[in-house]
Amino acid sequence: MPVQELPPLPSNAGEIDEETWVWTQIKAEAQRGAKSEPALASYLYSTIVSHSSLSRSLSFHLGNKLCSSTLLYDLFLNTFSSDSSLRSTTVADLRAARICDPACLSSHCLLNYKGFLTLQAHRVAHKLWIQNRKPISLALHSRVSDVFSVDIHPAARIGKGVLLEHATGLVIGETAVVGNNVSILHHVTLEGTGNVGGNRHPKIGDGVLIGAGAMVLGHVKIWEGVKIGAGSVVLIDMPPWTTAMGNPVRLVGGKEQSKRFCPWSSVEDDTVVLNCRVCIIPLLTEHRISWIVSVIVLEGRVASLVYLMHVGVELNVLQDLDLLICWPRGLSYMDRMPNV
Amino acid sequence: MPVQELPPLPSNAGEIDEETWVWTQIKAEAQRGAKSEPALASYLYSTIVSHSSLSRSLSFHLGNKLCSSTLLYDLFLNTFSSDSSLRSTTVADLRAARICDPACLSSHCLLNYKGFLTLQAHRVAHKLWIQNRKPISLALHSRVSDVFSVDIHPAARIGKGVLLEHATGLVIGETAVVGNNVSILHHVTLEGTGNVGGNRHPKIGDGVLIGAGAMVLGHVKIWEGVKIGAGSVVLIDMPPWTTAMGNPVRLVGGKEQSKRFCPWSSVEDDTVVLNCRVCIIPLLTEHRISWIVSVIVLEGRVASLVYLMHVGVELNVLQDLDLLICWPRGLSYMDRMPNV
Amino acid sequence: MPVQELPPLPSNAGEIDEETWVWTQIKAEAQRGAKSEPALASYLYSTIVSHSSLSRSLSFHLGNKLCSSTLLYDLFLNTFSSDSSLRSTTVADLRAARICDPACLSSHCLLNYKGFLTLQAHRVAHKLWIQNRKPISLALHSRVSDVFSVDIHPAARIGKGVLLEHATGLVIGETAVVGNNVSILHHVTLEGTGNVGGNRHPKIGDGVLIGAGAMVLGHVKIWEGVKIGAGSVVLIDMPPWTTAMGNPVRLVGGKEQSKRFCPWSSVEDDTVVLNCRVCIIPLLTEHRISWIVSVIVLEGRVASLVYLMHVGVELNVLQDLDLLICWPRGLSYMDRMPNV
Repeated sequence: MPVQELPPLPSNAGEIDEETWVWTQIKAEAQRGAKSEPALASYLYSTIVSHSSLSRSLSFHLGNKLCSSTLLYDLFLNTFSSDSSLRSTTVADLRAARICDPACLSSHCLLNYKGFLTLQAHRVAHKLWIQNRKPISLALHSRVSDVFSVDIHPAARIGKGVLLEHATGLVIGETAVVGNNVSILHHVTLEGTGNVGGNRHPKIGDGVLIGAGAMVLGHVKIWEGVKIGAGSVVLIDMPPWTTAMGNPVRLVGGKEQSKRFCPWSSVEDDTVVLNCRVCIIPLLTEHRISWIVSVIVLEGRVASLVYLMHVGVELNVLQDLDLLICWPRGLSYMDRMPNV
Repeated sequence: MPVQELPPLPSNAGEIDEETWVWTQIKAEAQRGAKSEPALASYLYSTIVSHSSLSRSLSFHLGNKLCSSTLLYDLFLNTFSSDSSLRSTTVADLRAARICDPACLSSHCLLNYKGFLTLQAHRVAHKLWIQNRKPISLALHSRVSDVFSVDIHPAARIGKGVLLEHATGLVIGETAVVGNNVSILHHVTLEGTGNVGGNRHPKIGDGVLIGAGAMVLGHVKIWEGVKIGAGSVVLIDMPPWTTAMGNPVRLVGGKEQSKRFCPWSSVEDDTVVLNCRVCIIPLLTEHRISWIVSVIVLEGRVASLVYLMHVGVELNVLQDLDLLICWPRGLSYMDRMPNV
Repeated sequence: MPVQELPPLPSNAGEIDEETWVWTQIKAEAQRGAKSEPALASYLYSTIVSHSSLSRSLSFHLGNKLCSSTLLYDLFLNTFSSDSSLRSTTVADLRAARICDPACLSSHCLLNYKGFLTLQAHRVAHKLWIQNRKPISLALHSRVSDVFSVDIHPAARIGKGVLLEHATGLVIGETAVVGNNVSILHHVTLEGTGNVGGNRHPKIGDGVLIGAGAMVLGHVKIWEGVKIGAGSVVLIDMPPWTTAMGNPVRLVGGKEQSKRFCPWSSVEDDTVVLNCRVCIIPLLTEHRISWIVSVIVLEGRVASLVYLMHVGVELNVLQDLDLLICWPRGLSYMDRMPNV
């Protein structure tokens, strides 16, 4: 489920910072757990209770999961200790996991959530990558892929409060960017189409939800609030607050979604943006762009149903067209026919 | 392939129980294996030959795979030893694997089948869960997810004689229920849609086959004998003995399947059950419900092809409709038009 | 991206063989890496720098990844040492990885590419399998599945210069065959349909590209140069140089592809090949087969659009038909109507 809002800090939070508060909660939970389950006591003590901070506990636990030596513990601890923004991101990720699953104990997230642990390891690998320590960054990435079956390229940029649910099989490419408060299920792929080099991976906006097994491929933009259904294959930009389903994907969305459309800042009056499978044409009123929608041209053929529209037509009836042709007053239809 | 029938016990089975018989077979195979491949002798001895029972061997092997300490060995052994129904379930699972692959040696299943091993670990985790030992149950679940890349929530209920083929990437949610003699391929997801809490995961009937990469999402009921094609995304109930394929899914099935339809007990005379994407309407004869079928309304639009039917029409020609409208005599069509 | 061509050896390659040249490059890179990242020096020394050959380094590294004992090291080393064609295949795979990713250091491939390491372990397991050392072959297969989440049956035959990109979740069945210079992305399944025994898995031609999450199921032939889109489910033969996308899959391809069609050697004059979902009928000229195309009959229903064609019709306009019926002169249409 999507991460929609973060709960407030407790009322006494004014005196202590959030990281300390979360750590206190986790430690108390682990102490209760050790009492109720003696078989776990030694594990909980060494992993949580014996440590003085969240960073130390997380570094120890990740180091253990990924490698039995102390090399990784030191690497993680140095990285977390030297970067307070990284620590606050970790806390935001913990809270995202907790919001998603109200029954989730924070110590359970820290100990057992593969998606949370993978993400923290990635954040360290990413920091090493931008410090140009690429060999060790790639070695850490490889180890995470072996242990957790999650493959996030160290160069990928991922926002705060992100939830990787189940996580197994997730693949995120080198030039992908993921926004804040995004939820990504297992088996999701954010990768290239194999046809281009350079900046070739998706950009995912804030608050997006990507269902299990969905694939977003190529240098496409998924705008804020988009929901992508399980198993969808997305090769096109998705406007804000829309929903995509199916393979090949179709836009799905009733009036509720269409009301939430908002202007697309990068498209100017009278712009026509085309590629081989998608036709995006601005619908013009007298003086401004009123709306834009991505419409799939199925498999390169000329659409069997072409809807020609003037300004002011309701957009929420257009979702099942193969091709949408909109044009401003004063131009003829043929001037604008895309070359598909 | 689906698990259709279990082979009979050998003729001398009257005197020994099935568990003992299977264990004798496995041990003999392992001894032959150790002779033919000296490089494996030490491994086979410590894992199988040296143990006095299937439970001990399985506990030792699972404990080794999941953790080098003896903690898990004791936990597994205590659980298996104290529960004879658990042991007979293990034997049923072994036999399901053997039926699926006639060339499968039982010792090979025990040693190498990731799906079999995962399932036994889950059965132990589930028993701990219902004993309210949740922290250790979740820790075991997490370790299984790391080692085997299989993520079955400890609370999920799974029947006997179940085959998890290949198993990698399988995800089964907290409130899911899986029947007996079910076959599930790799990368399958039995999860929620993200929209509801509580009882939010699929219920899978006996003898169901779920193909690789298929996703069954939400609190839906998959009736006995259903086959779900590879890569399908299923968001609706599936009547008994039907077949589903595609994304979005379509019902597939000729006369053979339709003849095996049977009444859906929870729907009463004249009931109309609707949700946003599916229309299920009873087809009435004079005094009883004659038939029901799940029909997908593609992506929320009004169907392009609407089939209006009276009682008695053959159902097996209806599988490709977007929308099925059935109504009893004496009511007009418009009284019943669903609000889609 | 597909592996299209291999780069030439360096100009001084006449005097040393390719394996030695590649190994010299890798070792030099590892030495530079150890200097720039002291935290990795010990790891790089023990894994690469201290070894006298690529085979020794690879055997040590794979042995470590898969098992802490020396059993696997000896097994790998003996296998590589005794088979020079296996060593040249390893070098071809290394080069395939490098071509795919121009920034890839060879030592990075050797150390970190899960797909490369999995493939080398499979090549050893396959050699053990054909030597009839099945128990140890299956044990190795099982260990690879646990550690790398990649499940390639030891009996599967895989060509040279193959790239398994990301690799996580890949499943390849027992009777599958993969050609040379093939690229396979993660989560791909090459498996059976569950309906038949014996030779039941796909045959993949040279130079094929299979996108992430795609499934090719059953004893089908994917001819050379085919591209299969991400998430496609392929149950039919694919003619050379065509592209498949979607679930259910559709052939996609303009004139460029259709020009590259070439005769299908196993289909003779006047043959009609049918199965439950696919209709393949030869289009006859007077004395020879001019062309053949696979056309999906969607879900077993009679096609809504049936195109009846005589000889000589351009094939590249037919890709969106549900059913293609072609017949030679002198036969009536009804003589040839497939029983779908």
